[in-house]
Amino acid sequence: MLVQELKPESKATVSPRIIGFGECLPGEPVTNEQMEQLLSIRKEWLETMIGNRSRHFAVNFSSRTIDYGLADLCTEAAVEAIDDAGINAEELDLIVLSTATPDHLMPATVNIVADRLGLERVKTYQIQAGCSGALQALDVARHMLVGSHRYALVIGGDVCNKYMDLSRDFSKLRSSELINYALFGDGAGAVVLTNENQDGLQISYIENRFEGKGRAPGQIMNWFGTVPENVQELSKRELRKQFQSAKEDYKAIEQHVPIMTEQAIEELLGQMKWTKEEVSYYLPPQLGWNMTKKIIDLLGLPLDSTINCVQETGNNGNALPYLQLKRLNGILKPNDKVVGVAIESSKWMKTGITLEYKKGEALDGTRDS
Amino acid sequence: MLVQELKPESKATVSPRIIGFGECLPGEPVTNEQMEQLLSIRKEWLETMIGNRSRHFAVNFSSRTIDYGLADLCTEAAVEAIDDAGINAEELDLIVLSTATPDHLMPATVNIVADRLGLERVKTYQIQAGCSGALQALDVARHMLVGSHRYALVIGGDVCNKYMDLSRDFSKLRSSELINYALFGDGAGAVVLTNENQDGLQISYIENRFEGKGRAPGQIMNWFGTVPENVQELSKRELRKQFQSAKEDYKAIEQHVPIMTEQAIEELLGQMKWTKEEVSYYLPPQLGWNMTKKIIDLLGLPLDSTINCVQETGNNGNALPYLQLKRLNGILKPNDKVVGVAIESSKWMKTGITLEYKKGEALDGTRDS
Repeated sequence: MLVQELKPESKATVSPRIIGFGECLPGEPVTNEQMEQLLSIRKEWLETMIGNRSRHFAVNFSSRTIDYGLADLCTEAAVEAIDDAGINAEELDLIVLSTATPDHLMPATVNIVADRLGLERVKTYQIQAGCSGALQALDVARHMLVGSHRYALVIGGDVCNKYMDLSRDFSKLRSSELINYALFGDGAGAVVLTNENQDGLQISYIENRFEGKGRAPGQIMNWFGTVPENVQELSKRELRKQFQSAKEDYKAIEQHVPIMTEQAIEELLGQMKWTKEEVSYYLPPQLGWNMTKKIIDLLGLPLDSTINCVQETGNNGNALPYLQLKRLNGILKPNDKVVGVAIESSKWMKTGITLEYKKGEALDGTRDS
Repeated sequence: MLVQELKPESKATVSPRIIGFGECLPGEPVTNEQMEQLLSIRKEWLETMIGNRSRHFAVNFSSRTIDYGLADLCTEAAVEAIDDAGINAEELDLIVLSTATPDHLMPATVNIVADRLGLERVKTYQIQAGCSGALQALDVARHMLVGSHRYALVIGGDVCNKYMDLSRDFSKLRSSELINYALFGDGAGAVVLTNENQDGLQISYIENRFEGKGRAPGQIMNWFGTVPENVQELSKRELRKQFQSAKEDYKAIEQHVPIMTEQAIEELLGQMKWTKEEVSYYLPPQLGWNMTKKIIDLLGLPLDSTINCVQETGNNGNALPYLQLKRLNGILKPNDKVVGVAIESSKWMKTGITLEYKKGEALDGTRDS
């Protein structure tokens, strides 16, 4: 295994703490039985191929309506995180939102969320990314927590199924299309970061790296402008070809993601000078439960040291790392070390995070317990 | 005029210098005469309503083909900026790209550009934004130039017309649709930033602020997923309603953008403790020449102290501030002060930048000339 050396990084101003956690999963969980009824995806196939038990959808496949936009989910997750942090929304200095599936190209969804939070004059940024987006957004936010900037709200979410054609006869979908409905769910997660020396999960390091030189994308998500005027003349086949929303090279993902995860963990441990045994919890990529389990086994991690949610939530993209972080909250002991990884197969991004749970520290950095 | 006080900001680690400039404007400039032939937009209307003389298009309205993607334009601008900076692409620590019109939702266009530059293991981030995106991207990049990060490539670009329906009969467009073809062009710009004490245009401050609380968007840009299976049954009217790509409230833009620009300049001057007279050059928003000229007159700025390009380039969104910066390069004298503003009307973002031209400074900060 090739482990590459990372450049050291100045940490002084960029190690904030997470002081609030929030999430929003739309509606009731959709079970595999319901998937069979709604989408003609066989329960057994879901269990064998994906391994997830349930997921949440922003669209209603029964009524074929879109019930939640990304802004809805992100606002709800944000409100929970702000409440959990015990601050007022007005105290936020900046908001960073990451998504692969914004409600519009303009305005950015982050600004709709800012409006719904009743804010004015807050700095806002929106990151366009797939799975790696949540860690990229945390990375941007922590670098901006300098000077007078004290509090950042960071949100990740995706409404994957909004861009699928709800009018389709699902029983006639090819398996290359089926996989998108089977693998992905919708949701949002959020955290509040502070650069103050409060109790919280301290982000010590974030890595975000493009590693796709010369390699074909493992995942493409198209989105389109106006429908051509001559659309009525096009055959269904032509239309489907021209307007294919999502495309995966599932074999490439299966091949590369576990290896990249293994490398990322080694690199993060090297960066922090931590041994594998010192780490209390791992946050492995949440692709689908079968593949996540495969990664955990490959890495030889004890299952109870890993934080997983994909089996219940489905793969909801930019929300996942926040859902994992929220599940960490409450079970951490002081100085627990955490290593998380998210791999984006679209053009092969390797992202990772290291955290330490800090509690009862005085402002001079010494423990006061 | 309400001028609001800004929070002071720590500047120590976030005042990089621009050491390379690049741009890419696709094809030959399209004149107003050609617009009349190609798009049935009357030359006189363009002169009276917009005031621009030419623009560049990534699409070919004659052959109705898309000749350049965003990645094409951004890569070319990036190569020019890297060459101009006199560094090797491999020395880049990070790339930040901003756009309202990415080639795909995934992979992010920034990663396609990284691949084309032959890079591997570089940090990449993509900002989703309209006009304000260029300054947001510069803001993100400057905050990331800490520790061992020395060089950042920052790119802004838009291919607005790619998402319009090229099969349309342009002579039948309503004026609310026509305005998009008339106002917007395509292009990309790029700069290389360094945190080293080199000759260059130093970024002293960037403001980025949401100010759209409770206000309707002045601009919406939709983009869509798959075409519904029942598309053949929909009338053209239904289709056009369901798939309207762009929508502007031109009156709201006309009303608010000049006021927000005036406020932004006052706020930036206040932040820097600069008087209006001390400023050598202003970079006013480049909406369309008529509106830009109106802003310049409203603010009472001497025309030759303003840097404008929209009359020749058209409004190419995230590219514009880079085109203005490039036009500054070469005419600056040591310690010249520059104030730039970009206003995004989508959900009302106020963004501004202040810069100073630093030349011949030794590493201890004293002049060596």
